[in-house]
Amino acid sequence: MNKEISQAVIRRMPRYYRYLGELIDEGVERISSNELSSRMKVTASQIRQDLNNFGGFGQQGYGYNVQYLYEEIGKIMGLNEQHNIIVIGAGNLGQAIANYMKFEKLGFVIIGLFDVDTKLSGKKIRGIPILMLDEIEDFLATHKVDIAALTMPKKNADEVANQLVQLGVHAIWNFAHVDLELLDESVVVENVHLSDSLMQLSYNIVKSKKEL
Amino acid sequence: MNKEISQAVIRRMPRYYRYLGELIDEGVERISSNELSSRMKVTASQIRQDLNNFGGFGQQGYGYNVQYLYEEIGKIMGLNEQHNIIVIGAGNLGQAIANYMKFEKLGFVIIGLFDVDTKLSGKKIRGIPILMLDEIEDFLATHKVDIAALTMPKKNADEVANQLVQLGVHAIWNFAHVDLELLDESVVVENVHLSDSLMQLSYNIVKSKKEL
Repeated sequence: MNKEISQAVIRRMPRYYRYLGELIDEGVERISSNELSSRMKVTASQIRQDLNNFGGFGQQGYGYNVQYLYEEIGKIMGLNEQHNIIVIGAGNLGQAIANYMKFEKLGFVIIGLFDVDTKLSGKKIRGIPILMLDEIEDFLATHKVDIAALTMPKKNADEVANQLVQLGVHAIWNFAHVDLELLDESVVVENVHLSDSLMQLSYNIVKSKKEL
Repeated sequence: MNKEISQAVIRRMPRYYRYLGELIDEGVERISSNELSSRMKVTASQIRQDLNNFGGFGQQGYGYNVQYLYEEIGKIMGLNEQHNIIVIGAGNLGQAIANYMKFEKLGFVIIGLFDVDTKLSGKKIRGIPILMLDEIEDFLATHKVDIAALTMPKKNADEVANQLVQLGVHAIWNFAHVDLELLDESVVVENVHLSDSLMQLSYNIVKSKKEL
């Protein structure tokens, strides 16, 4: 389990987790890599290769135990622990994230929103308080925070991110449209760049028109 | 220009575009692949390889003309044309997307939001009307729509997506946490699965703790 697993494999794991969750909902107890392959539209050999990175799970001729595989992938992805999240930027995007109940089912619990707009002070989103950014030091001193989601403009993103890191935050879910320049390189960052995603979509639109 | 360019290269292009835009803002006219490499923290050979997919743009010993490269990448990504977007689901996430002015600067113009919640009917977000989903057929008959963003629950996502496709929509920006099952396979889909992104983050948190 100590070998390096490629980020490409890791990117595919949440999708396995989602499909296995759907199979559990349908009452399916065992599935062969061929059946899973036709559902997920990836090759059975890809599935076997991906899962072999984590030690296999399958039994020749028996297929995979759905519940077991689901739980093991959950553990690999760290979903057996609760992750507390704060959201920096309580605009529409920050509020959308705070409102999304699904994250909680995966163990990601939003415990506070922060903003600089005093009009938002004291408001709550689904019971989660909106605090002012200058209260963050106190908050971090008294709450366990595992992830900070940055849903703020890119202009101050570096400054705020580095402040959070100095105060002990080790993981950032970055929606600001910038590659963060962090002073501490051990911090884990996951970017969601919506503009980049739109550009990829528009590239594929142009390409599909050419193919017609 | 007819050869197939890998999606991995395409995924990197928006980042080039963003960095080149920043260089333009700073008044930089020319940049070598080495300088661009140290800014973007990718190897110079990666940069040369990526850009060679589109015919190069660089001149040996002169580096890249920043403005020219920026515009050419913009054209490759289809940003020289306006893309009209409708947003299906006018909750927080839909409203966040409608409020995000930056997309417009890239040529992505949101022209309508749709929902089934009659309380939202007649409201406007940044001047963009919220309409009821049963008005969509009329709307699509009278408006050019290039992209539908699905910011609705996954339960009805397939049904609505297929309805949109039948009405002539050819590209979907899917935020619903499901792989869409579309009857027409020529439709271009780009997924933004926020739960998947959180799971990748949490995997990397677990991994970084093990490395300590």
